[in-house]
Amino acid sequence: MNTEMRIKTDTLYREVADKVAGLIAQGTFRAGDKVPSIRQMSRQMKVSINTIKVAYGLLEDACIIEAKPQSGYYVRPKLPAIPEEPDLNPPKPVSLQLTSTELVIRLMQDILDPEKVQFGAAIPAPDLIPEQKLSRILSSVNRRHGKESVAYAIPPGNKKLRVQIARRMLRAGCSINPGEIIITNGAAEAVFLALRTICRPGDTVAVGSPIYFNFIQMLKELGLNIVEIASSPSTGLHLKSLKLALQQTDIQACLVISNFNNPFGISISDDKKEQLVKLLARYRVPLIEDDINGNLSFGDDRPTVARSWDKYGDVLLCSSFSKTIAPGYRVGWIAPGRHYEGVLHQKLITNIASASPTQLAVADFLESGGYDHHLRHIRREYAAKIGSMSEAIGHYFPKGTRVTRPQGGFALWVEMPRAVDGMQLYKEAWKNGITIAPGTVFSTTDDFRNCLRLNGAFWSEKNKWAIEALGQKATELATKSQHL
Amino acid sequence: MNTEMRIKTDTLYREVADKVAGLIAQGTFRAGDKVPSIRQMSRQMKVSINTIKVAYGLLEDACIIEAKPQSGYYVRPKLPAIPEEPDLNPPKPVSLQLTSTELVIRLMQDILDPEKVQFGAAIPAPDLIPEQKLSRILSSVNRRHGKESVAYAIPPGNKKLRVQIARRMLRAGCSINPGEIIITNGAAEAVFLALRTICRPGDTVAVGSPIYFNFIQMLKELGLNIVEIASSPSTGLHLKSLKLALQQTDIQACLVISNFNNPFGISISDDKKEQLVKLLARYRVPLIEDDINGNLSFGDDRPTVARSWDKYGDVLLCSSFSKTIAPGYRVGWIAPGRHYEGVLHQKLITNIASASPTQLAVADFLESGGYDHHLRHIRREYAAKIGSMSEAIGHYFPKGTRVTRPQGGFALWVEMPRAVDGMQLYKEAWKNGITIAPGTVFSTTDDFRNCLRLNGAFWSEKNKWAIEALGQKATELATKSQHL
Repeated sequence: MNTEMRIKTDTLYREVADKVAGLIAQGTFRAGDKVPSIRQMSRQMKVSINTIKVAYGLLEDACIIEAKPQSGYYVRPKLPAIPEEPDLNPPKPVSLQLTSTELVIRLMQDILDPEKVQFGAAIPAPDLIPEQKLSRILSSVNRRHGKESVAYAIPPGNKKLRVQIARRMLRAGCSINPGEIIITNGAAEAVFLALRTICRPGDTVAVGSPIYFNFIQMLKELGLNIVEIASSPSTGLHLKSLKLALQQTDIQACLVISNFNNPFGISISDDKKEQLVKLLARYRVPLIEDDINGNLSFGDDRPTVARSWDKYGDVLLCSSFSKTIAPGYRVGWIAPGRHYEGVLHQKLITNIASASPTQLAVADFLESGGYDHHLRHIRREYAAKIGSMSEAIGHYFPKGTRVTRPQGGFALWVEMPRAVDGMQLYKEAWKNGITIAPGTVFSTTDDFRNCLRLNGAFWSEKNKWAIEALGQKATELATKSQHL
Repeated sequence: MNTEMRIKTDTLYREVADKVAGLIAQGTFRAGDKVPSIRQMSRQMKVSINTIKVAYGLLEDACIIEAKPQSGYYVRPKLPAIPEEPDLNPPKPVSLQLTSTELVIRLMQDILDPEKVQFGAAIPAPDLIPEQKLSRILSSVNRRHGKESVAYAIPPGNKKLRVQIARRMLRAGCSINPGEIIITNGAAEAVFLALRTICRPGDTVAVGSPIYFNFIQMLKELGLNIVEIASSPSTGLHLKSLKLALQQTDIQACLVISNFNNPFGISISDDKKEQLVKLLARYRVPLIEDDINGNLSFGDDRPTVARSWDKYGDVLLCSSFSKTIAPGYRVGWIAPGRHYEGVLHQKLITNIASASPTQLAVADFLESGGYDHHLRHIRREYAAKIGSMSEAIGHYFPKGTRVTRPQGGFALWVEMPRAVDGMQLYKEAWKNGITIAPGTVFSTTDDFRNCLRLNGAFWSEKNKWAIEALGQKATELATKSQHL
């Protein structure tokens, strides 16, 4: 063997060893795991058995793997440099150059951080999710309906579930045939499919403003133009502004959260719902109505839906059980009116169907009456949380701060003095273990710079310190800017 | 009360009664169900209590509902006109004007018809889905990981599952970091997200032809142009044709099912995979590689993936457990290379996340080693099914019929004599309770008129009659056309 040859194979050994070490570092194999046998690895990497032998030897020397007699090679446990459960997607450091897309992705991914106070994304309180009950139902329905549980729930989706949904919508003054409903992966997918059915890239959509940040991302990604229609924090959508927009712009769809909207937490009155439907019908513009919070009323009854006044099948009603049952179950639905065939096709081409086991579980929970009992409980709890959180904000936030008075749901909208930059507050809060949603992500305009949306579901006396910290920081920012 | 008034209220009674009867007819309330109380209904319908009383009286007279003392009103059981379990979406009659979209929707919805012989959609055999095992795993993981099971599996999705997937891909000669993988709702969604990330409407995508019908629907709905690249039923994609297309057309992406492809059931060789990746890299065209059947090899080892030869992060590898574990679980994944951030964002805006419970179950099944055991079993079974089904085709179909020789998966491609129209055979078969996939839905061209794809998963001696019936009908069609 001449020197060049030797160097070449030496490099090869090291390359192979590095590759395996890389797989371990990345978490593909973790401490205690068996790595592929020399023979398997040789086949997979397409190098000789001898090369793998030498490479494994190098890894043994480096204390990365160890041989166990009669058994094979194992990743050595408790390596100082490799945590047992590697964090595969470390959160990126806060940067001043964060785009709104990056910010929204982080708002969502921060949900997974158990160390953070979750005032950011509007997720339900973990202790108000009927976790054990759902686990029992899931076990039971999947045992009883084994075949259905593993098979495709081909759109429109589980029939029992659709019957239950149709029946419940009567309470919103809305009679829907179960055959008009299509099950989706949450309300987000319902709105996504509705937009994909009605609009083509380049079209314009009117939305109540401010609006749920994921909808802005969705509209942008679908190549749609956004016309924001001003809303009042107490009475909702300004119909006059909408009318003006319809007169002046070629609008192809209107997207509105009709009840306990996100981020204000308030509903449009029945009168206004009727007028909204009539106004849009006059311009032949379909309404995508999101009723995701409709069942979270703080009052006795749930509010109506605009769909009740629809005569032409042009209101596409969307909702889900993500806020009231479990976001991880991904069970939502759409009643797309005359756009039924189009939405059904969009669902098929997007992902064929939604998961079957969770559809079965939600159907059973609704059918048993357990859902109603559960709703009564969580509505009281959320009303109390929103009340106390508002009080705490009043106490700790700078003078001139205003909060909405939600009638349901669990989002709270905070308007701080003009001088306070919500993004700056977001960044400071994030460093201190608190995540909040800055006002700017709820609009394409700069109108809500001094605003925040707080997730009231995570309010508790234990988290009061976070409101105090936010209030202090906001006061600082308000004062600092006065001195400039 | 004058006459006019009386007529008006009479009409109102009847209107209300009709509305309730309509809800019952539509299946919102079924035989034996309690209907809302008079008080509830009066609130929901916004009419007086007295009106509801009279309307309910009319419905009692019509034997539609009945009052039970101390309990309320119930839908009367066993009404002759209303079946107990109403068929909410009756299949439409076979029409000669069926568009390809309608046909594909019916191919999918026919899965739900237990009376049909399922040679149409490529769904796994019910008895080869480890239904009871999955039900046990699902119960157990959801009890053990309650919090995770109800919470959002925010993209990239369940970490354990991604580790298992990365580890398994080593056997395909492909080293992927678990942090590069994003969990999706099946492979269909993986491809959908890939296309949405890479392409804009008006772009052109090269696909191996013939190709899985849902992909054609997806490409069309996304506003993408399709360039079909010819494939050989024995060696797969013609690289020369692809090269020609790349030279002549502005192509933005290439979509290929690399292993046991749908509909041929054959794989591209390692050499060809390498050449394919190199060729596309030269033109800087990303490859969307679908490996959904990769684990269903009839041989000892699973084949490689083209992704193994990727140097630039431009191969977006897609797969799922729909064919091997359970389609209803909707667990798929994508390793999008350098397009990771884009695909992640597309996943968030499409439906935020995939269902958590089924991700946990699949991760556990993989981790326990149960999956490998299961795979060994079903691979043998599918190989046997494909073998016997091919023989039966040889026996019953007209002279000149050819079938592919799949090396894995469970689809079988049948080329009949030129004179036989696959669509006509489809319609005749459908009327006789057999669903098949006619060749035309696998292409935008008319090149596969005389072809069929049969789902071999549903082959059994019990279903032999269906192959005999198909063969007879095909022979008739072949003979008839000779006489014209």
